Amino acid sequence: MSKTVGVIGGGQLARMMIPAATNLGLTLRVLAEKEGEPAALAVTALGSHLDVEDVLRFAEGVDVVTFDHEHVPQAVLRELVARGVNVQPSPDALQFAQDKLLMRERLAELGVPVPDWARVVSSEQLARFLADHGGRAVLKTARGGYDGKGVRVVRDASDADDWFAAADGEALLVEELVEFRRELAQLVARRPSGELALWPVVESVQRDGVCAEVIAPAPHAAGKVADVAADIATTVAEALGVTGVLAVELFETTDDRLLVNELAMRPHNTGHWSIDGSTTSQFEQHLRAVLDLPLGATGCRDEWSVMVNVLGGPATGAVTDRYDLAFADQPTVKFHFYDKAPRPGRKIGHVTAGGDDLDLTVFSARAAAAFFDN
Amino acid sequence: MSKTVGVIGGGQLARMMIPAATNLGLTLRVLAEKEGEPAALAVTALGSHLDVEDVLRFAEGVDVVTFDHEHVPQAVLRELVARGVNVQPSPDALQFAQDKLLMRERLAELGVPVPDWARVVSSEQLARFLADHGGRAVLKTARGGYDGKGVRVVRDASDADDWFAAADGEALLVEELVEFRRELAQLVARRPSGELALWPVVESVQRDGVCAEVIAPAPHAAGKVADVAADIATTVAEALGVTGVLAVELFETTDDRLLVNELAMRPHNTGHWSIDGSTTSQFEQHLRAVLDLPLGATGCRDEWSVMVNVLGGPATGAVTDRYDLAFADQPTVKFHFYDKAPRPGRKIGHVTAGGDDLDLTVFSARAAAAFFDN
Repeated sequence: MSKTVGVIGGGQLARMMIPAATNLGLTLRVLAEKEGEPAALAVTALGSHLDVEDVLRFAEGVDVVTFDHEHVPQAVLRELVARGVNVQPSPDALQFAQDKLLMRERLAELGVPVPDWARVVSSEQLARFLADHGGRAVLKTARGGYDGKGVRVVRDASDADDWFAAADGEALLVEELVEFRRELAQLVARRPSGELALWPVVESVQRDGVCAEVIAPAPHAAGKVADVAADIATTVAEALGVTGVLAVELFETTDDRLLVNELAMRPHNTGHWSIDGSTTSQFEQHLRAVLDLPLGATGCRDEWSVMVNVLGGPATGAVTDRYDLAFADQPTVKFHFYDKAPRPGRKIGHVTAGGDDLDLTVFSARAAAAFFDN
Repeated sequence: MSKTVGVIGGGQLARMMIPAATNLGLTLRVLAEKEGEPAALAVTALGSHLDVEDVLRFAEGVDVVTFDHEHVPQAVLRELVARGVNVQPSPDALQFAQDKLLMRERLAELGVPVPDWARVVSSEQLARFLADHGGRAVLKTARGGYDGKGVRVVRDASDADDWFAAADGEALLVEELVEFRRELAQLVARRPSGELALWPVVESVQRDGVCAEVIAPAPHAAGKVADVAADIATTVAEALGVTGVLAVELFETTDDRLLVNELAMRPHNTGHWSIDGSTTSQFEQHLRAVLDLPLGATGCRDEWSVMVNVLGGPATGAVTDRYDLAFADQPTVKFHFYDKAPRPGRKIGHVTAGGDDLDLTVFSARAAAAFFDN
């Protein structure tokens, strides 16, 4: 009997677990909302992650339930646990990835460095925070944001009138607009029994609030930066009881501090390079971790790995129409597509280049991705 | 629209195409004989590869039909082509992988070095061949053999009485028993439009007629051995019009010649190392090649890659029961299991280790595989 992992959500993260599960001889089952989602090949049930009955039915007979996204409500998660389902990461851990206010409070308690922040429920509170922080700040909804959604830079309290109205008394999170040199991400995997494995800290380049490129390892990070990033991720993973992959997005500030920006408790875009660039990909590691199996080695297979997202995709024709030119031009680049229809700004795939020379590696990855633009 | 590859046969070779197809954003459809075969995840039709109607129905709407095995009869293949189905490799090429006598005749015509051989239909003819070759030879059925089946060492013409009786007038192939130092395999991929890509020649260690281990690249082969192996494979691929992956199994004789032993026109056990050890795996390359897409780079990701088959598997308990110890002991080894029930001698998985030191790499791979013995 093979071991069975159930994944809630049929997006590209579930899709990218398919190769890992196939290789390891594990059975993957996916609960998707509808047909034709990226993980369609492994979909065994259609239903809503918001519906406790759908989720309970799906969870029958799997060894562990894990996630493609963090949108499964706490009530559903807790009902699963109450019925004896093995849920990894646990609802207790996941709540901190689901609610940014809860996350900020907990990280502050732990002494993990974060941007200045406050819980605000009114324009007056926001105005006070703005006054204390140079007249500008980042406002975030506590729940439901991703890829730049649910995040807004504000320069005047009135900039948030619509959000306060829509929030209906629920608090928003306001944060200082951090002066950062660059963004980093530290990924770590943790098993229920405690074993941890960290990949090297990576640099991520965001455009319009969306990850555009990742360089692994982050240049000029060896030593202090890497050590601090690893310490932060280890502290967070252990204190919050995270299992599976934890992604800690960090700001490297202009005054040389690392501050935690966001957390995700699942494989993460900043870890896609690991499919081709690490001995153990984040997807394989996530499966090992949630099954409480020993973790794989996380060394780099190349001196540099550069991942570039394919955002939007071709304006005309199919993605595969571009394969001839792209494959011929970049025979060493690894291409990944998620079977998603092109749409402006949509993540439909990524490419990863590896090499000894960072500039050439960046060039290859960008050149490969560019074949799928416009 | 994604491109769709149809694979006839649901075994582990079709299974190992799933990760490659998933990554590249291709759609894989598999025709299997029954439920629960290794490629079950991608199975879209159950039917017999011997039944032209089953195969024609399966082939509807795919961009190309290719194979997990070489057992589809020529009559079925030619009917597919007659109906306009894109079959890669073509029946004209495949016949040489299906019929060892045809293969020997064609290679001899091409001047490709092969063991001494003869077509025999009677004990008398076999006796004459034995007399001319030191009283021993290898007898093979022309069709249907694999993994040591359909192959027998004979020392007396009477050793073959049962086969001649069963062959019912059909000729058998007899070959000299080659004095070889070791066995090698040269894999190459070729597109219909002609592009070729070769992996480095590898050494394969056979036990009881079954591949047990592969070392990539073959030690002490750089230079002449590698050049001759590459020349042979290129000649065969081009002259026979092979598309997709071609595996040429070779004897390196004690008097320093390379002789062609067998051909396979599909991904091959001696290429499994490439999943983890080459920039482009044989499974990805096969998909690219049969779709006539530009081929990927075939360089080695490690100085040495060592693949060890898991043959037989645990006598008690499930394969996954061994994961805890095996994964903990060998965190850098890549494990591959095919979801096949353990049975003495059966290939149920393989492991691949990579490293700079050949002895240590062999040790790691063997140690990892040994966790699944008995």
